[in-house]
Amino acid sequence: MASGHQLPRIRHEVGLALERFLDRQRAVLGDIGPELRPWLDAIGALLQGGKRLRAAFCYWGWRAADGPDGPQIYAAAAALELLHASALVHDDLIDESDTRRGRPSVHREFAARHAEQGWRGPAAAFGAGAAILIGDILLGWTDELLAASGLEPAALRRGQPALDAMRTELIGGQYLDLLGQAAGDGSVDEALRVITYKTASYTVARPLQLGAALAGRTDAPMAAACRGYGVPLGIAFQLRDDVLGAFGDPARTGKPSGDDLRDGKRTVLVALARERATPAQRRVLDARLGDPGLDETGVAEVRTVLTGTGALAACELMIESNLAESLRALEHAPLPGQANQALAELAVAATERSD
Amino acid sequence: MASGHQLPRIRHEVGLALERFLDRQRAVLGDIGPELRPWLDAIGALLQGGKRLRAAFCYWGWRAADGPDGPQIYAAAAALELLHASALVHDDLIDESDTRRGRPSVHREFAARHAEQGWRGPAAAFGAGAAILIGDILLGWTDELLAASGLEPAALRRGQPALDAMRTELIGGQYLDLLGQAAGDGSVDEALRVITYKTASYTVARPLQLGAALAGRTDAPMAAACRGYGVPLGIAFQLRDDVLGAFGDPARTGKPSGDDLRDGKRTVLVALARERATPAQRRVLDARLGDPGLDETGVAEVRTVLTGTGALAACELMIESNLAESLRALEHAPLPGQANQALAELAVAATERSD
Repeated sequence: MASGHQLPRIRHEVGLALERFLDRQRAVLGDIGPELRPWLDAIGALLQGGKRLRAAFCYWGWRAADGPDGPQIYAAAAALELLHASALVHDDLIDESDTRRGRPSVHREFAARHAEQGWRGPAAAFGAGAAILIGDILLGWTDELLAASGLEPAALRRGQPALDAMRTELIGGQYLDLLGQAAGDGSVDEALRVITYKTASYTVARPLQLGAALAGRTDAPMAAACRGYGVPLGIAFQLRDDVLGAFGDPARTGKPSGDDLRDGKRTVLVALARERATPAQRRVLDARLGDPGLDETGVAEVRTVLTGTGALAACELMIESNLAESLRALEHAPLPGQANQALAELAVAATERSD
Repeated sequence: MASGHQLPRIRHEVGLALERFLDRQRAVLGDIGPELRPWLDAIGALLQGGKRLRAAFCYWGWRAADGPDGPQIYAAAAALELLHASALVHDDLIDESDTRRGRPSVHREFAARHAEQGWRGPAAAFGAGAAILIGDILLGWTDELLAASGLEPAALRRGQPALDAMRTELIGGQYLDLLGQAAGDGSVDEALRVITYKTASYTVARPLQLGAALAGRTDAPMAAACRGYGVPLGIAFQLRDDVLGAFGDPARTGKPSGDDLRDGKRTVLVALARERATPAQRRVLDARLGDPGLDETGVAEVRTVLTGTGALAACELMIESNLAESLRALEHAPLPGQANQALAELAVAATERSD
């Protein structure tokens, strides 16, 4: 039953819902002006990729609450992909990331357009402004697509608190991340707290809860089941992402090899290495992490420290134990068998070493 | 009947609705972390000021559609103040404005906090990141407060298209503004097109339409009445704002005298001056506009050109004729007498020379 999670089908349906939504927006933006055409190209490219995990968890939350299969839930789930795209655009700008899914990040793309055209003023500021606004419109479209999903107004009202919480936790978590880079102590606890809000809750627990609430289940046992399964799984998922960001294959991550190291991302993996490092190993981390010019040799040096300190192994253990905790919670969750089975498979798929 | 528009009462009720909402969010953000406390201080300060025009137009749209007075409509109208605050935070960042309503703008405030604390990395980047995220949360809260207004789900569904259009036009208009600064021809037509989307539709026509739709009037004659009155009034309002930005009293505008000139804002007023300028006058505009170090003497020089070219007089004429067009449309609008009277008063209040 390797395909009980139906991820390929969910991805397909969610992709169609996004395409239909963007087609409508093409007309709306076109009425404002042809200058907005490049927005849809950039947004379309951004929405092409992605694992659609948030959408899949929303779908299975709905099914777990006995919601019927149909276009409404795919459109609602697709709205979460707009929220995610918004967060990526703003996050890449804040982190000064150059690439996203194998393409230039949105602020870089619009800065390049400015430079090519020889426009007035600094190209970087133009790119930043465009990325702020494109992230804004994606954030606004989240609500627009959800409202236009075809779900009944009463269903939408039931789902609203989960969406509200998801958005606030995501944005608040992004600030904790920013603040940690400026003023944090680099500890494992701190890194874990950031990912609890910025990723864990927002990737799994809240989308599940949203799906369930839309289908009518806003009760405490269901919310507890979503959290019990979703929070540890979300942590495991982010830890896997951290490992891939340091060791992953560029063909899979869509980012240059070791890009998280070059960006100086304050991941749990790096925090684990810092806690365990000898003075010599710490010097490597201090000198190399966050160096935008870090080359393959430098990346290899950092990897040696991440492995040599035992941080990588410790991180893999944390992934394993969080995944196990998530699956244990699922065993006790009051969910129908099909949903339970799908969620167990999704948990494994979201945290495995390679696609 | 100078107080038929009830603006003081609307401001008071909307202010209370915002306070209640922020109190709830204080608890939500506190659960994420005490580090988020400064957000609410910054947001609270931002929401203190403002004319509440968008809220007032939403309220009168509701009343024009025979909606009953009550806390629901004040909460719904207050949601528009959150949207506006979001736009201000992101706009100030994009325009690199130092102040807003007599205080440091949000990105400057957080940059100053970073510098004071001696945190790592560049203070300006931290301030920019914080402002992006605070603008994001305000944008998300727009939907949250509207949904929590106590209005029926069916009413919210009726209002959704007006909110969707408002948001897209606002953000799209902000991009036209950014693009105009980089690549525009500085013409009056171009400046008018920017304010049509960025301000006019978003300040008057769409809030009115939203209020009317929430109360049940989504019909074409009502939408046409909102546009007929709202679009020219919104243009007149923005033109008044442009004049105040160049000639206004800092005590009223909350910005240093002549700040729009220092920022090089591409207003209709400036475009009118450019079209009429002699080569000598044009040289003054080219040398002075957008000079961040522009002093009182420089501001006075530019003002002399704005007056001497006849641009100021032409702008005042445009305000007058747009206001007249708006009031004419109102005369033919199918609205109850009280709403009609209130909207006529609001139109005058929104465009008059001083408070």
